[in-house]
Amino acid sequence: MKIGLLGGTGIEAKGLALRFAAAGTPVIIGSRSEDRATLAAREYNSLLGNSRIQGASNQSMIDQSDMVILTVGADHILDALHSVRLSQDQVLVDVSVPMKVDGAGVDYVEPPLGSNAERIDESLGGLLPVVGAFKTIPAHILADLQIPLDCNVFICGDSDEAKNRVALLAEKIPSLRPLDAGPLRAARTLERMTVLAVHLNRRYKRRGARFLAVGI
Amino acid sequence: MKIGLLGGTGIEAKGLALRFAAAGTPVIIGSRSEDRATLAAREYNSLLGNSRIQGASNQSMIDQSDMVILTVGADHILDALHSVRLSQDQVLVDVSVPMKVDGAGVDYVEPPLGSNAERIDESLGGLLPVVGAFKTIPAHILADLQIPLDCNVFICGDSDEAKNRVALLAEKIPSLRPLDAGPLRAARTLERMTVLAVHLNRRYKRRGARFLAVGI
Repeated sequence: MKIGLLGGTGIEAKGLALRFAAAGTPVIIGSRSEDRATLAAREYNSLLGNSRIQGASNQSMIDQSDMVILTVGADHILDALHSVRLSQDQVLVDVSVPMKVDGAGVDYVEPPLGSNAERIDESLGGLLPVVGAFKTIPAHILADLQIPLDCNVFICGDSDEAKNRVALLAEKIPSLRPLDAGPLRAARTLERMTVLAVHLNRRYKRRGARFLAVGI
Repeated sequence: MKIGLLGGTGIEAKGLALRFAAAGTPVIIGSRSEDRATLAAREYNSLLGNSRIQGASNQSMIDQSDMVILTVGADHILDALHSVRLSQDQVLVDVSVPMKVDGAGVDYVEPPLGSNAERIDESLGGLLPVVGAFKTIPAHILADLQIPLDCNVFICGDSDEAKNRVALLAEKIPSLRPLDAGPLRAARTLERMTVLAVHLNRRYKRRGARFLAVGI
């Protein structure tokens, strides 16, 4: 089982690559520039002291991955998806949250179909299962292996099998418990929870707000 | 500071009455039937071994309360509000979540204005501040004093002063930490989080799913 990151040189990708690779899963960083991807992979491997992460062009990454996580910014996902050829045997994981942050506060930017995950799913026309996950965990917390996650990863999607594949890999990450959050439209909740977390960070002058379901 | 419960003889009201009164705050149970309210107050007082809870008609409860919590069902709130006279010196607290539960699962029933809290606020035309709170804590967990809450109460509203009044009373409740969740429209998030909690209860065969913000 290999995980690929589409647009994998930002902070969200770094965090996911480090956490998955530290837990033993091979990761392929994809980028429009193979050189940039290879450089990032080298940097992350040196942090881990192993070589579980490799770099590739986006298409080459996709051709080798069982699961592709979209780690380009929320506004660029549809363009990025249309620039590559996906396979129906893959699972596509959306981690994005469309939000607006300014002096007045932070607010959710509701996409036409109710959530970004549903918008991505619709644009793919059912070619492969789309799963929403990792939306509520801050990227810089993922990227700092010294910080125990101590939270849940909420996984939503309309394919139980696809959700299971994501959960099986996520549960290898220490101090992270995957929870099945329901159908893909539950992304409407998860994306808004991230906006709440960003609000809490600003309100209480912290950086790492994330969520744990108590009693489950 | 006295807390009144509008329509205070159901399980949500029982839980809030017990938790607030156990924490030292006087509570007035309001009901269309003063007799039913007095009976409920007597039962709750005997559980607590004190007499901090009293019963009254809904209007009499409102005339004595600094804060009124709406504990009628989500569908009956607007009718209940129009049957009483509120005062502008009070804070109105909405704990409701409009949801649909059936064999297929649980789903949020999105109100016309985006959340039930905003719908209630609009129907009052700015007469008094509306605060959304306690939405994400299961009623039967509140009602069982043997269970430590170990979670947050997320408080949203457009009046900081009103949110503060709710937070000051809520923080007296052991193992419950109030957090300022932002403006009233954050109820769109909090109401959906409750639907997620109900989904998690069904999915994992548990009853008490609730949320803790980690890292805050």
